[in-house]
Amino acid sequence: MSLDKLGVDVIEAGFAAASRGEMSAIKLIAKEGLKAEVYSMARGVGRDIDAVLKSDADGVHLVVPTSDLHLEQKLKKSREEVLALTEDCTQYAKDHGLSVELSAEDATRSDFEFLIKMFAAGVSAGADRLCPCDTVGVLTPEKTQELFSGLKKKFVNFSISAHCHDDFGLAVANSLAALKSGADQVHVAMNGLGERAGNASLEEIAVALRAIYNLRISVKTELLFDTSRLVARLTDFPLQPNKAIVGDNAFIHESGMHTHGVLAHPLTYEPFSPEIVGRTRRLASGKHAGSRGIKASLNEMGLNPTNEQLKEVFLRVKTLGDKGKKVTDADLQAIAEAAMGLPKTRPIRLEELTVVTGDRVTPTASVRLNLNGGVLTEAATGVGPVDAAMKAVKKAILAVEPIQLENYSVKAITGGTDAVTEVAVQLRRSDRMATAVAVNEDIVIASIEAMLSGMNVLLTNYNKLELKETS
Amino acid sequence: MSLDKLGVDVIEAGFAAASRGEMSAIKLIAKEGLKAEVYSMARGVGRDIDAVLKSDADGVHLVVPTSDLHLEQKLKKSREEVLALTEDCTQYAKDHGLSVELSAEDATRSDFEFLIKMFAAGVSAGADRLCPCDTVGVLTPEKTQELFSGLKKKFVNFSISAHCHDDFGLAVANSLAALKSGADQVHVAMNGLGERAGNASLEEIAVALRAIYNLRISVKTELLFDTSRLVARLTDFPLQPNKAIVGDNAFIHESGMHTHGVLAHPLTYEPFSPEIVGRTRRLASGKHAGSRGIKASLNEMGLNPTNEQLKEVFLRVKTLGDKGKKVTDADLQAIAEAAMGLPKTRPIRLEELTVVTGDRVTPTASVRLNLNGGVLTEAATGVGPVDAAMKAVKKAILAVEPIQLENYSVKAITGGTDAVTEVAVQLRRSDRMATAVAVNEDIVIASIEAMLSGMNVLLTNYNKLELKETS
Repeated sequence: MSLDKLGVDVIEAGFAAASRGEMSAIKLIAKEGLKAEVYSMARGVGRDIDAVLKSDADGVHLVVPTSDLHLEQKLKKSREEVLALTEDCTQYAKDHGLSVELSAEDATRSDFEFLIKMFAAGVSAGADRLCPCDTVGVLTPEKTQELFSGLKKKFVNFSISAHCHDDFGLAVANSLAALKSGADQVHVAMNGLGERAGNASLEEIAVALRAIYNLRISVKTELLFDTSRLVARLTDFPLQPNKAIVGDNAFIHESGMHTHGVLAHPLTYEPFSPEIVGRTRRLASGKHAGSRGIKASLNEMGLNPTNEQLKEVFLRVKTLGDKGKKVTDADLQAIAEAAMGLPKTRPIRLEELTVVTGDRVTPTASVRLNLNGGVLTEAATGVGPVDAAMKAVKKAILAVEPIQLENYSVKAITGGTDAVTEVAVQLRRSDRMATAVAVNEDIVIASIEAMLSGMNVLLTNYNKLELKETS
Repeated sequence: MSLDKLGVDVIEAGFAAASRGEMSAIKLIAKEGLKAEVYSMARGVGRDIDAVLKSDADGVHLVVPTSDLHLEQKLKKSREEVLALTEDCTQYAKDHGLSVELSAEDATRSDFEFLIKMFAAGVSAGADRLCPCDTVGVLTPEKTQELFSGLKKKFVNFSISAHCHDDFGLAVANSLAALKSGADQVHVAMNGLGERAGNASLEEIAVALRAIYNLRISVKTELLFDTSRLVARLTDFPLQPNKAIVGDNAFIHESGMHTHGVLAHPLTYEPFSPEIVGRTRRLASGKHAGSRGIKASLNEMGLNPTNEQLKEVFLRVKTLGDKGKKVTDADLQAIAEAAMGLPKTRPIRLEELTVVTGDRVTPTASVRLNLNGGVLTEAATGVGPVDAAMKAVKKAILAVEPIQLENYSVKAITGGTDAVTEVAVQLRRSDRMATAVAVNEDIVIASIEAMLSGMNVLLTNYNKLELKETS
């Protein structure tokens, strides 16, 4: 549905013969009454095409190998047999009312003359479209141009597709080269999903066509970002921050040189406006709103910086941001105190924490906190060591202050059992919120540090502090 | 150091004038006595070049804008002023003993005649290399070819670099096009890091040059994977699974069609052997898995299902895959045992685990395992409770079996301190690998369960089991 709304022409909804789940997924999609045509993949065997027929798809994406490597090693069929099965399967699918897109698998490592013969066999049996697949991603833009110009000469006025894999990071460039050399459509996947390094990325090609080649396309690029995030979530395939178009950082300007330019004119460091893909830039719309926002946050903490001090805070926040760090309320508090020459007083301090867990032990934690000189001691059990420790701290604080943990999250951990863990928390004290992050190799310590650091933002009372100093 | 070992020719180590941190980082790198030349960036202002001189870098990457947009909006200088400052800055850097790579910023949106004039000004003052930067990533391979051929005609026998950004996913293709059209070197970044969507990816270009163009290059591609993971960890920039060359899935084959082919001959679905980049291939089981791939995995575990049993396993794997689950080796083992009517015997069992941590306690774990009836007891300390527990288990097992933990990762945790945590591990025992996943509210227990479940795949000896049954 999201792909249809996005404006794609054809959806390859699955491989009907692969499993019952695939079959019912294709059925469900075919029933939706989408504007896009719905296709299912099939190999060159009767039962695969029968499965497509059962799935109610509009057409079949029929994949038959053409390289000697595939014929000899995988299919174990002669070239003649492949030509015969291509004709038979195409005929069979057409006879049963399916549209047929005939793909030559591993076409880019195939003998060109045989490729032509195989496509000709499909055309004679009624294939609607032809697609020479770059199955292992070995095309370059030059080779792509040669291949598609060659094919277009042999199959004049015939619809040809490109299907590129990204093993060398060239799938987008090759797809664009194919379109320039006569291809009528390209196979793409949102977020560049697909076997191994994936297929050509829908979002990169769509935006390149619109912003570099100035073409009008049916894809509604404004929906790309939301669609990309939906797909990433549903497939559990996260995007790296520097992924083009849809990565977290694609429209964030970090270095001083770049932010300076973007503040003067966004296009100095942007190829196109982020709104085109449903996003906003960070920083450009930001200088004034940013410093106003910072001032408001500081006021809420009870801090009233002078203009000079605010400028200093703003600069330091930017520096921290330039380093790719998210600036939390706890960071902002520390920066402001330094800029305003205030003592770094923290109402809460951890005096002692002990946690026990195991397979036959109820996870248990004891904690001793120092709040403005008074000692708070508590113990709690939990579902695990983190939960027990956090509950002990919450219990200890709740006895004197109404602070709630609103949000707790841990960044994915990779790199080993001793990797650094980053914990983020969001706390609430009546109508005030505070965010904090802590980093430690011990997930329990990181969690407690994040929570205490957020609590300190909510509990520091600068009026009292200043009174003390002047008295 | 890792980049130097990898075999790169020049390292741009930072922007000396940006901050003290950058300055000292460049100094440290310059002192290492690397084979690679060390450069620092500088804008076209005296103080930036002075900072480079102080940093002890070998050369300066001097960046001066040439597009009217940059001149008018950011630099607020006329073309004549830009030519004068280019000459002055180049001269100044050369007079002080620096090599100079002169970059025209936003060259690809600049007037070509003015670009030529600016480069000529630099050349007359002694610049060693010229680089037309594609600052916002708007080049295509065709435009790249035009640009570099044009420049090479004007600056015959002069060294020219390419600097491509990946805003449309074209940085690698453009860099390769530049090399084909006369560029002598390309600016790259490991994992494609850089502003916004990043710069051209070192690993993709290096492997394309080697495997597509069959060139001999100085980059030791065998080190690419390890270097990439090191960079990802140090920069905290994770890679998406479908990232070319270095992503988790770049050499994983899932669909039945693909695993069938790879088992017959790996190159059917691989552009080159994964060993070239320091990796190994893997077959994954999932909804697209084929029975041949599953059979190979089961054989490796020592299981020899009948055709009927294999069909049953195949169906259950598909069902699990349809539910969106990744099927690990441990899952496959459990499914196969059920389908083959084998007793669910596990050589290793956890008998007891106790873990203590805290702010004044060295995280410590004791573990008692039962391996085939024998008891293994060990204790270990670690950087946190998970690390301590995992180390205790590793120590206990290593005493009798050479099993290594190759990979440990935890999915991001959201939803609170009592949210379910998913831990994935990959283990190796000589040339066999096993993956396992465990889910628990206690991250320590989840980690241990995943590890034991993977170890059980590697340690179950079905031959012995069958003997026992028949005896």
